Amino acid sequence: MANQKNNYCVIMAGGVGARFWPMSTTAKPKQFIDVLGTGKTLIQLTFERFKNICPAENVYVVTNEIYKDLVLDQLPELDKNQVLCEPSRRNTAPCIAYANYKIHETNPEAVVVVAPSDHIILKGEEFTNDIQTAIKAASENDWLLTLGIKPSRPDTGYGYIQYKEEKIYARDSRLRKVKTFTEKPNLEIAKNFLESGDFLWNSGIFIWSLKNIMAAFSKHLEEIDSLFSKGIGKYNTLAESDFIKDTYAVCKNISIDYGVMEKANNVYVLAVDFGWSDLGTWGSLYTIREKDENANAIVGENVMTYDTKNCIVNVAAKKLVVLQGLEDYIVVEENNTLLVCRKDDEQQIRQFVADVKMEKGEQFV
Amino acid sequence: MANQKNNYCVIMAGGVGARFWPMSTTAKPKQFIDVLGTGKTLIQLTFERFKNICPAENVYVVTNEIYKDLVLDQLPELDKNQVLCEPSRRNTAPCIAYANYKIHETNPEAVVVVAPSDHIILKGEEFTNDIQTAIKAASENDWLLTLGIKPSRPDTGYGYIQYKEEKIYARDSRLRKVKTFTEKPNLEIAKNFLESGDFLWNSGIFIWSLKNIMAAFSKHLEEIDSLFSKGIGKYNTLAESDFIKDTYAVCKNISIDYGVMEKANNVYVLAVDFGWSDLGTWGSLYTIREKDENANAIVGENVMTYDTKNCIVNVAAKKLVVLQGLEDYIVVEENNTLLVCRKDDEQQIRQFVADVKMEKGEQFV
Repeated sequence: MANQKNNYCVIMAGGVGARFWPMSTTAKPKQFIDVLGTGKTLIQLTFERFKNICPAENVYVVTNEIYKDLVLDQLPELDKNQVLCEPSRRNTAPCIAYANYKIHETNPEAVVVVAPSDHIILKGEEFTNDIQTAIKAASENDWLLTLGIKPSRPDTGYGYIQYKEEKIYARDSRLRKVKTFTEKPNLEIAKNFLESGDFLWNSGIFIWSLKNIMAAFSKHLEEIDSLFSKGIGKYNTLAESDFIKDTYAVCKNISIDYGVMEKANNVYVLAVDFGWSDLGTWGSLYTIREKDENANAIVGENVMTYDTKNCIVNVAAKKLVVLQGLEDYIVVEENNTLLVCRKDDEQQIRQFVADVKMEKGEQFV
Repeated sequence: MANQKNNYCVIMAGGVGARFWPMSTTAKPKQFIDVLGTGKTLIQLTFERFKNICPAENVYVVTNEIYKDLVLDQLPELDKNQVLCEPSRRNTAPCIAYANYKIHETNPEAVVVVAPSDHIILKGEEFTNDIQTAIKAASENDWLLTLGIKPSRPDTGYGYIQYKEEKIYARDSRLRKVKTFTEKPNLEIAKNFLESGDFLWNSGIFIWSLKNIMAAFSKHLEEIDSLFSKGIGKYNTLAESDFIKDTYAVCKNISIDYGVMEKANNVYVLAVDFGWSDLGTWGSLYTIREKDENANAIVGENVMTYDTKNCIVNVAAKKLVVLQGLEDYIVVEENNTLLVCRKDDEQQIRQFVADVKMEKGEQFV
């Protein structure tokens, strides 16, 4: 394998997974949970995935400071210095800026893969190959790369990437220049995108050389870049923590997609197909999970079903659950909370979380 | 009020309430639970009801020996000797025979009301009046009386009593001679009964003089009568317990309805209407309980519903429950068990209990 020492990975692990409540709570969000019941949490699966790409010491995790111990606990190979703690949530651009400056202190020649901590990738080998392809392309060109997923439905939960037809990379014809980046569309527009045939889902996985992404920040997010640049000399010292606290207090909340990718003119996409799921919804978890003869996806040792089908059930291991006459429901029993909800209406879960927080207090969410 | 000293009450409290699982379990069946959320358990409500009929020292409770402490705990006015402990379940005839002989030791002139411990009676005053009417009729005649409820639907869960049209009791025209006693009918037959117009539900509440019921046992259940008569001289002594153990080991399992009421020719019924429910089903509990604006009957402090109606919900006080898109369901979270079941299919609960016992073990039931 090619020399990995310049390969870095930044895992974004600050999300609170509201859509997977009550399985995912503020105390222990989705990325820290063994969602598939495989024996490894989502962040552990992500970390393992990247050990094929770069050395363990080149992996950084950005997360909220309240999850620092959880991260170190679940990823014991990390040194404390590899866990970047955000005092508050400011979306992905500040998160990436922080990681950029941190990595720059040790290795300005870095090529960085930025990825969420809570995605599922079923075809590990293809993933590794695709990432290597992207790393090579990003290190030899001034391209900001993203991975695009062929859409299988007009999902309104993803950003979309429209690409140009022209094949511009000899090594891999799936790599194209990006025409447009679009934020989450409504159903009508999503359907149009699919019909158009030249749109991909934005996977939220990015690959770029440190040089190029920092240049992009300097050009398109000057304010944020300026803030984080003031930390030079403080990163990797005892002064880093206070500096970050002060910086996040005044830093704007903005996504990397909106702040950089939609504006830059050196954005490229590699169209991939490695069994990807962002596990963003109970519905997607239902799709991924093993199902029994009644098309129920069940996690829980003592769940008994009668005339029940197409349900996704998640309960604490020992609890006895008897379900009769349910079709197409989500049943989750976790964290002293029971949720029963139609699969088709799961987008309401965010509203439940908001209502619970307001009416019952923070302890439940 | 007339002299109460010959009035006795026998409360039958040995049932295991399988149909109300998981709220009702073998460890703590329905009669020992505050099912309506009024602050009193069903057996406590029953005991209070009978304090208007007879002195506290004339109340006897027959129950399974494993519930003895529960009974004394919930009914502190009872003396230990007033709690008759059955070693095993033999249905209602042996239960009544035991109580008969016990009472006979102290007062052969007793007039006895025999009642289940887990019924609801909403109109307490009418109940008291009707019982007094029945007691008077039973003490002045050789009648074995039962209370019959005007049927409001072709319920297949009750025994039915067909009465003769002739008014034979000057004091109360609602009292009639019984033509037939029928066990639980199928739906077809139940519908015929309702159409016929001369059928009542068997409430399971009986009123008779001790003399007459013991004569009836002697005539129609000679074998059982003979067994219990051997205890004369042992009742109310230290020898009672062993005697009862030996007797129940060989005693047949038979109901008072089948063993006596269907055979005797001196059976009468008083047609009553005092807001009675045997609370035999979640459906009946749903009918009785207060309902919110979405016709949900909810017990639990932290239950939130969305697009949910006509449901009965029972959860431990503090647990957070969010229900969305459910119509006509039973949702019970109790004793480390969750049950979700269509109201229309609740008769399957007995089967669930049997299956759980077999597949998961006794600890859950």
